[in-house]
Amino acid sequence: MVGQVIVPKMVALGHHVFMGTRDADSTRNRTEPERTTGVSFVDWFSAHSGFQLVSYADIPSETDLFINASHGETSIEALESVGKDKLAGKIILDLANALDFSKGMPPTMLVCNNDSLGEQIQRTFPHAFVVKSLNTMNCTIMMDPSRVQGDHNVFMSGNDSASKHIVKILLESIGWSSANIIDLGDITTSRGTEMMLPVWIRLWDALGTPEFNFHIAIN
Amino acid sequence: MVGQVIVPKMVALGHHVFMGTRDADSTRNRTEPERTTGVSFVDWFSAHSGFQLVSYADIPSETDLFINASHGETSIEALESVGKDKLAGKIILDLANALDFSKGMPPTMLVCNNDSLGEQIQRTFPHAFVVKSLNTMNCTIMMDPSRVQGDHNVFMSGNDSASKHIVKILLESIGWSSANIIDLGDITTSRGTEMMLPVWIRLWDALGTPEFNFHIAIN
Repeated sequence: MVGQVIVPKMVALGHHVFMGTRDADSTRNRTEPERTTGVSFVDWFSAHSGFQLVSYADIPSETDLFINASHGETSIEALESVGKDKLAGKIILDLANALDFSKGMPPTMLVCNNDSLGEQIQRTFPHAFVVKSLNTMNCTIMMDPSRVQGDHNVFMSGNDSASKHIVKILLESIGWSSANIIDLGDITTSRGTEMMLPVWIRLWDALGTPEFNFHIAIN
Repeated sequence: MVGQVIVPKMVALGHHVFMGTRDADSTRNRTEPERTTGVSFVDWFSAHSGFQLVSYADIPSETDLFINASHGETSIEALESVGKDKLAGKIILDLANALDFSKGMPPTMLVCNNDSLGEQIQRTFPHAFVVKSLNTMNCTIMMDPSRVQGDHNVFMSGNDSASKHIVKILLESIGWSSANIIDLGDITTSRGTEMMLPVWIRLWDALGTPEFNFHIAIN
């Protein structure tokens, strides 16, 4: 679902886009309606163009920036299927959250407090530049911040300043104003943004819509 | 520190206020500067009036509402010193967070993910009505929301609607507009607000001030 929102936006921005999936042939033939969108992949795919659907292993090694929009609980495995060598020296923009739905709603977190998915990915791919961002909001707002009125924020966590600068440029091209992008610091700060998910889920329930976002109001 | 901000405000609002502490005689004679404020308790106490400083056990049983402004790691012990019977049928407005500073900065949380301090207090005092609120901001903003510009939010979690209604009236008397008070649901939703602390601490660092607050911007 997140990928289906991100891919058309990246195509519209003029990027050369590969949509990665575990098994492209199987994905391409998925006729059952998706749980989250109600639309089958086949129908979504036939309505969108300008990108290539490929299996993880077939994403070209020239790719500059990888957006991790996989489920958090399978992100490491998905990125390993892309290939460690391919990710070395590249930016991984990680917007996943590792939630455990196995005990029902609301989910708990698979990793939190003294670790985070962002850090796990950085440790697993030490030669990649992980930038955690956009994980604190609904995917529709990630790619179109104007859906929420007024100022509201997107956070960034990562060890490499140059990579965060490139992600910032990407965010600005999507429509995020420079003033609303908050760099929290190194990748350990993604513990903080990932731990915003539990209140986010409860706010969705309390407000009756997922189309809201956090704004940091300052003195 | 939190108590020293709350007590004068409650006095100014016309409430009959008891400030509880482990040992009132020892607190009353504390001449060393407090770590967080730089002012000794003796000096603070001599500059403020209109309330009584008492040991936890001496808080009168007629007290209607207890504000837990103790350190989260000692909250249960502090409330047990007040007395289980005294708390039965009363509101505990819990604004504490249980942080573990023992491994240095930033702190981790002593309880999170599948439990919360709010729930622990509710379980320990099953006949009290625990309302978690105000724990997502600096104490100066708790008691004076106008210190932060524009709209920003305060959350409430609790099992008893009537108790949340009373806390809401108290919040409004402090200066919180009704529209900015978000009732998240039962006490389990305090997991969400307590887990906002890690990003709050990182935001303090990134923004260079603790005088900010979360605002939920909506479509």
